[in-house]
Amino acid sequence: MKRFEASEYAARIKATRERMAKAGIDVLLVTCPQNMNYLTGYDGWSFYTHQIVALAQDAGPVWIGRAWDIACVRFTTDLPERDIVGYADEYVQATDRHEFDFVAETLRARGWGARRLGVEMDTYYYTARCHERLAAGLPDARFVDATSLVNWVRIVKSPQEIAYMEQAGRIADLSVEAAVEAIAPGVRACDAAAKVVAAQIAGTRDFGGDVPETIMMSSGSTSSAPHLAWTDDPYRAGEVTAMELGGCRHRYCVGLSRSVFLGKPPAKLGDLAKLMAEALSEAFEAVRPGALAEDIHRVWSGVIARQGYVKKARIGYSIGLDYPPDWGEHTASLRPGDKTVLQPGMTFHLVGGMREPEWGIQMTETFRVTDRGHASFSAVPRQLFVKPA
Amino acid sequence: MKRFEASEYAARIKATRERMAKAGIDVLLVTCPQNMNYLTGYDGWSFYTHQIVALAQDAGPVWIGRAWDIACVRFTTDLPERDIVGYADEYVQATDRHEFDFVAETLRARGWGARRLGVEMDTYYYTARCHERLAAGLPDARFVDATSLVNWVRIVKSPQEIAYMEQAGRIADLSVEAAVEAIAPGVRACDAAAKVVAAQIAGTRDFGGDVPETIMMSSGSTSSAPHLAWTDDPYRAGEVTAMELGGCRHRYCVGLSRSVFLGKPPAKLGDLAKLMAEALSEAFEAVRPGALAEDIHRVWSGVIARQGYVKKARIGYSIGLDYPPDWGEHTASLRPGDKTVLQPGMTFHLVGGMREPEWGIQMTETFRVTDRGHASFSAVPRQLFVKPA
Repeated sequence: MKRFEASEYAARIKATRERMAKAGIDVLLVTCPQNMNYLTGYDGWSFYTHQIVALAQDAGPVWIGRAWDIACVRFTTDLPERDIVGYADEYVQATDRHEFDFVAETLRARGWGARRLGVEMDTYYYTARCHERLAAGLPDARFVDATSLVNWVRIVKSPQEIAYMEQAGRIADLSVEAAVEAIAPGVRACDAAAKVVAAQIAGTRDFGGDVPETIMMSSGSTSSAPHLAWTDDPYRAGEVTAMELGGCRHRYCVGLSRSVFLGKPPAKLGDLAKLMAEALSEAFEAVRPGALAEDIHRVWSGVIARQGYVKKARIGYSIGLDYPPDWGEHTASLRPGDKTVLQPGMTFHLVGGMREPEWGIQMTETFRVTDRGHASFSAVPRQLFVKPA
Repeated sequence: MKRFEASEYAARIKATRERMAKAGIDVLLVTCPQNMNYLTGYDGWSFYTHQIVALAQDAGPVWIGRAWDIACVRFTTDLPERDIVGYADEYVQATDRHEFDFVAETLRARGWGARRLGVEMDTYYYTARCHERLAAGLPDARFVDATSLVNWVRIVKSPQEIAYMEQAGRIADLSVEAAVEAIAPGVRACDAAAKVVAAQIAGTRDFGGDVPETIMMSSGSTSSAPHLAWTDDPYRAGEVTAMELGGCRHRYCVGLSRSVFLGKPPAKLGDLAKLMAEALSEAFEAVRPGALAEDIHRVWSGVIARQGYVKKARIGYSIGLDYPPDWGEHTASLRPGDKTVLQPGMTFHLVGGMREPEWGIQMTETFRVTDRGHASFSAVPRQLFVKPA
């Protein structure tokens, strides 16, 4: 169950140590599951219990987590046994002890108790309590914020990562095709969603998929809200369904969204869908090495402004390796002020879509920066799909 | 999209305020999405951005989150507009400002800046940075740990909650039936998983489902690890598949696990499966109001000890309303030392299963405590499913 060559993990660790050195970090404590996977390959669905990967300048990575999950470490990583450390089950969600008491002890035993420790202060899996217990357990340590340090290494994808994302892109296309086929008047939204997710998991003849983080499908008036899932209600003629779908391969995600209308769409909605398609295409044409993240936002926003539209949310973000709850990478965003310089191998989900008070439509797609411009991970037509009511 | 009567939310808020008073909390800041939902109904898939519900003794609940998600608040809650506060999109995952700077300002504007604030220190969605920014923004506040405060209110389910869990239980049965039907030699695991998850979402004729947090399926040697997902590999004769499945209805989850063997199982595995079924049944018979959580563990462990087995992990936990990454409730666990007194309306996932070095099997089921004993949410036979190879 190893996804990459040992040399690729070595390169990731080297790049991470370079950033650690610049940030003045002796030992990096990674709690973000994506980053744990990135540095070691670890791929267990165990992040609901506290766990970390510790990487020193001259040692590690060391996995520290629930002993129950050590079998998952052995299947998915090449870590030597001395660098796999499990805590007893009594620590799990206990009130009289904390997993980070054990982490602190383990770090101290390795001689890292008085070092400069990098911690991911704003990661879901490093709670306020984790930091409090670690600081209490290591009074001689100095703490340096390392939020998104590894994420910034991850932002440029390797050829093998791109290959997995291309597979995810193929699955994303299949998920949208499944939705367009399934959505029809009288069909329950949950039945359509079942077919969509089945397509995401079954994948193609050559490879299967995982469940992506984001599967949004909302119809009629609820399409005006960005983060609602399906209901049991049957689809009705005259309604739009806005979807945020995608594909996931070995936890590499590609987002893809389209919308479906049952019947003849109102002119305003049809026009907006065309505008979203134009904006997406023009923004993609602006992608090239050296362009800034905010440039892509400016082009997209310029197109929708032609029809008087303004979108108040960012229109995209770096995407790649992910675990719940977010497939965004927490690095570059496509929005004003983001000066990230685009480089070949970067991958973004461009979230084109408008939420009006009465309805919304989605037109999103994931691309990579190439040596000369861009390549989309999807081949689904950029249009509002209209089906007979 | 309202799931409960207004009176039920009022009762939840009343019970929460009683606990707040005992804990010396003036204003409770809830970041756990389950707890936000429990107190207000809020059900947006937006928890990847920072958001809270603030509940004072004499005001609120107040939703504070990304402005982009206010439409989701309006669809899923009855909160008045004055108690819905959105921050601008520039805060999302920014490095030069933080969402909890905005939260601090909002709390101060409501006159809560110098109060005793309850914060969920060990919740995934209250990061070390969230706490740091809040404390910096409210230097006159006193902070009280409120981890799991609302969770302990949630532990006893209402009749309507039980009704949703019964629906989830029906879906859980369908998911296992789909797995048993799909798993066969030569079938790719991803194709079987696609059918399982489709069954979870399509539900029955009367109601659909959501994707549960936990969908584990591992086969052959990898069944020895508890937290691995499916692969693309075809199932092979002579292999066991250990599954942790379930159902989810309006985010109420029921866990259910069985295992499937292709061909004639080795005697040791067949015997262990029978033992797991006996242990589950005997443990369930010990469930009654007044029993302690640890009593259930003792009975289960006593049964497996008859054959010389020992399990080093807890064998269950309170379950109910959930969002990623955990369907466990972070309150009572079925393990030694847990003195939680069982009461009618409590619901637990009993995680019977053994992971041996070469393989593992799962036999888990979710039950509720009734007035006199227990009721299971599932009707699937407690056995190892054996299919021809």
